[in-house]
Amino acid sequence: MSDLTVIAEPGQHDIVVTRSFDAPRDVVFKAMTEPEYLARWWGLKETETVIDRAEMRPGGSWRFVERAPDGQEYGFHGVVHDLVAPERFVQTFEFEGTPGHVCLETTNLEEKDGRTLYTSVAVFQTVEDRDGMLQSGMEHGLKQSMDALDGVLATVS
Amino acid sequence: MSDLTVIAEPGQHDIVVTRSFDAPRDVVFKAMTEPEYLARWWGLKETETVIDRAEMRPGGSWRFVERAPDGQEYGFHGVVHDLVAPERFVQTFEFEGTPGHVCLETTNLEEKDGRTLYTSVAVFQTVEDRDGMLQSGMEHGLKQSMDALDGVLATVS
Repeated sequence: MSDLTVIAEPGQHDIVVTRSFDAPRDVVFKAMTEPEYLARWWGLKETETVIDRAEMRPGGSWRFVERAPDGQEYGFHGVVHDLVAPERFVQTFEFEGTPGHVCLETTNLEEKDGRTLYTSVAVFQTVEDRDGMLQSGMEHGLKQSMDALDGVLATVS
Repeated sequence: MSDLTVIAEPGQHDIVVTRSFDAPRDVVFKAMTEPEYLARWWGLKETETVIDRAEMRPGGSWRFVERAPDGQEYGFHGVVHDLVAPERFVQTFEFEGTPGHVCLETTNLEEKDGRTLYTSVAVFQTVEDRDGMLQSGMEHGLKQSMDALDGVLATVS
């Protein structure tokens, strides 16, 4: 059962996402930042995610490509601005189909009784950009990704 | 006379700054993005700004150091996410004294009758971060910088 919540107050610039995972924080952090795990949960279920670059350190950059069953490719990239293992990272996120539109995402992991609470706050350049992201079906894709991440956790070593 | 406006609605993540300049847009853009001009207007009046790095292109990074009269140094850095000369750039902004706190700034320049309207929208990770920036005396420093930029424009070639 997923306890995913997606909160987007009307007229605000941000989207707040929370979800808990039944694993210690260092395991969740590893799965969220190491390429071999990222490739297995990031993106939609029906697509294959190729990790082009994943320099998960402050000042590093990442680029992932989602390859759809019809062969179409969708690129995403960003820059890591801060990373404090295993509790926090700050990064930008851009879809290459809409250049110039950038989102700034802060992820926090808190551990309690062996479980980990994931909280992500994404801020957008405009409220319209934020609303566009919501309307693009983000919640559907996010749910798939988070569920896939949940499945990957047991394999993290 | 400066027509600087700084708008920060209560409870929002953003600060919107506007100002007009009596110069064509390509001149303002140059002064805002080329190191030799940046060093002359960026930062407080009483400090010296040293341009450590200014890769003003998408994916490039910048780092400026403000040197106060007492010798104290304050570092700032960011990443350029988008740049469309002479109309627009998107960058992050971090003060090295508060690591992990990142602001995402979108700057637009519009030209009308030979004058240029500068609009900057900065979004912060939290409303508290945004309010902290306002309380730090940002408007005072911004006014000084923008007035200095105004003075630099006549020298742009």
